[in-house]
Amino acid sequence: MPRTRAADDVAELVAAARDGQHRAVARLISLIEDAGPQVREVAAALVPHAGNAQVVGLTGSPGVGKSTTTSALVSAMRALSKRVAVLAVDPSSPFSGGALLGDRVRMQTHATDSGVFIRSMATRGHLGGLSAAAPQAVRVLDAAGCDVVFVETVGVGQSEIEVVSLADTTVVMLAPGMGDGVQAAKAGILEVADILVVNKADRDGAETTTRDLRNMLSLTPHPEAGEPFWSPPIVKTVAVRGEGMDKLTAAIGEHRGWLEAAGEGDRRRLRRAEAEIEAITLGEIRARIGDVRGAGTLPELAKRVLAGELDPFAAADELAESVSST
Amino acid sequence: MPRTRAADDVAELVAAARDGQHRAVARLISLIEDAGPQVREVAAALVPHAGNAQVVGLTGSPGVGKSTTTSALVSAMRALSKRVAVLAVDPSSPFSGGALLGDRVRMQTHATDSGVFIRSMATRGHLGGLSAAAPQAVRVLDAAGCDVVFVETVGVGQSEIEVVSLADTTVVMLAPGMGDGVQAAKAGILEVADILVVNKADRDGAETTTRDLRNMLSLTPHPEAGEPFWSPPIVKTVAVRGEGMDKLTAAIGEHRGWLEAAGEGDRRRLRRAEAEIEAITLGEIRARIGDVRGAGTLPELAKRVLAGELDPFAAADELAESVSST
Repeated sequence: MPRTRAADDVAELVAAARDGQHRAVARLISLIEDAGPQVREVAAALVPHAGNAQVVGLTGSPGVGKSTTTSALVSAMRALSKRVAVLAVDPSSPFSGGALLGDRVRMQTHATDSGVFIRSMATRGHLGGLSAAAPQAVRVLDAAGCDVVFVETVGVGQSEIEVVSLADTTVVMLAPGMGDGVQAAKAGILEVADILVVNKADRDGAETTTRDLRNMLSLTPHPEAGEPFWSPPIVKTVAVRGEGMDKLTAAIGEHRGWLEAAGEGDRRRLRRAEAEIEAITLGEIRARIGDVRGAGTLPELAKRVLAGELDPFAAADELAESVSST
Repeated sequence: MPRTRAADDVAELVAAARDGQHRAVARLISLIEDAGPQVREVAAALVPHAGNAQVVGLTGSPGVGKSTTTSALVSAMRALSKRVAVLAVDPSSPFSGGALLGDRVRMQTHATDSGVFIRSMATRGHLGGLSAAAPQAVRVLDAAGCDVVFVETVGVGQSEIEVVSLADTTVVMLAPGMGDGVQAAKAGILEVADILVVNKADRDGAETTTRDLRNMLSLTPHPEAGEPFWSPPIVKTVAVRGEGMDKLTAAIGEHRGWLEAAGEGDRRRLRRAEAEIEAITLGEIRARIGDVRGAGTLPELAKRVLAGELDPFAAADELAESVSST
């Protein structure tokens, strides 16, 4: 027998979240994360109250110091009396689910500050995965009155880049010795960076990393005349000592100003909404494929491909047919 | 006017590829990569001739030494008279397309060896992305008589893990100071590793990294009694000097033996074919969404979500409807 739980009063939760109540915010994000029956109701209740926060994506290789930097950024933003949220998403770990203790401990500094919302998020069972879940969670934090929502991801894979590049402002972090400019270019992250951070800038090799980055940036193609153009600044930081956070905070603020002045903010919000809708649609189709898999259709098709009887495209046609007829 | 090119004689190309001709192999992979009109014909012609190669996935953070290790592994496998292929896939770079010069240069050693096939692969325009394109490219190399196909990815994001974990044997690489065991666990890569490599093992911290890994591995849950069980070995290497390659080659061979003895090889091949079919199906649906986007439906839906008039789930319903009616 499935476990049941009394349905939440979503309207009440949204009202409480808009009032800045942390428990209500947390509960709404859990409803999104679990993708249960109430997720549609949550989305509908939130949509009218969103659109004010600046969404700042942070990405970089594991070990580059993302959590520490995010924590230092939160302090810097609080000093400016901004309401701040951190959404730590973990697309790389479909297996374990949930965040490791380490991050929570590092964020403990802000645990008692009512102007700071911190949330780790897995995407267990979410229709459309992170690309659908992250924008919905951001909408909760936005509706709760946050001025800035940091979205932090682990790793620099395609899915991380997708999530982060859906931000209004994308911060890409590097550190000396953690892979030079060429490695960053390989990972395709320079193209999406609005701001580049060289963290651990007190270490050997920081100058080399910065110079490499500058060289790589000079190779990026110039935009068409009349296209809005932003040249990504390179900010050196030592996040563990809070060094460079003033400059990074300023760069984030400047980028917000540029977004609105250039009309690019609207374009990015539109792109984000499009990606969200598309991800939900694909997620629902994927769920139907899952039903088909359960019914034995997909394994049967795969066996015929392995036996050399059927090519994978013909198999996909058969799969699509059985999905659309369910 | 679109550029046209005479259609290839696919049957002839497949015959030449089975004969070990490099140009034919390269052309077939290009046809897959471009996902042009002949891609179905290529798939159908290859399916009967595949199923012999051991597919070995290699992953790890940028800078960990994957390309160098792959090159050293190729030398070691050639010394055992194996026919070897390297497929370097780059899911992280949807923007630039193609591989950087550096890798090609490093692989130059093997350029004149007719028993070695080396190919970089982007997934520009491929229906279903890398999850669909990589198995098809592997099928070409398999049909060309390769004993081992190395699939090397950049980065450790979810898409890389997906691709690599579809291999028969998954090798996860770490290096001292490049992120310790906790970072590896964060990235969710320990769960998919069949073999762990600590590269740059002559550097400070190699012992710590190895010990951390061993501790993390000891925390992984034990399988049900009767389930096939493989305990991932940790191999220390210094790839630039070719050190440890004999042990790594032996571990890869042992894993192949275990796969077949435990019946796990069949299970993994089936899973790979399922993932491929599913990816092609989703890719075709995504392409239809692209058509809908072109027709203005998706931007219109996104605008209504931003205006607070429509929630994203209702928008997804409308999108699904217009996709299935096209």
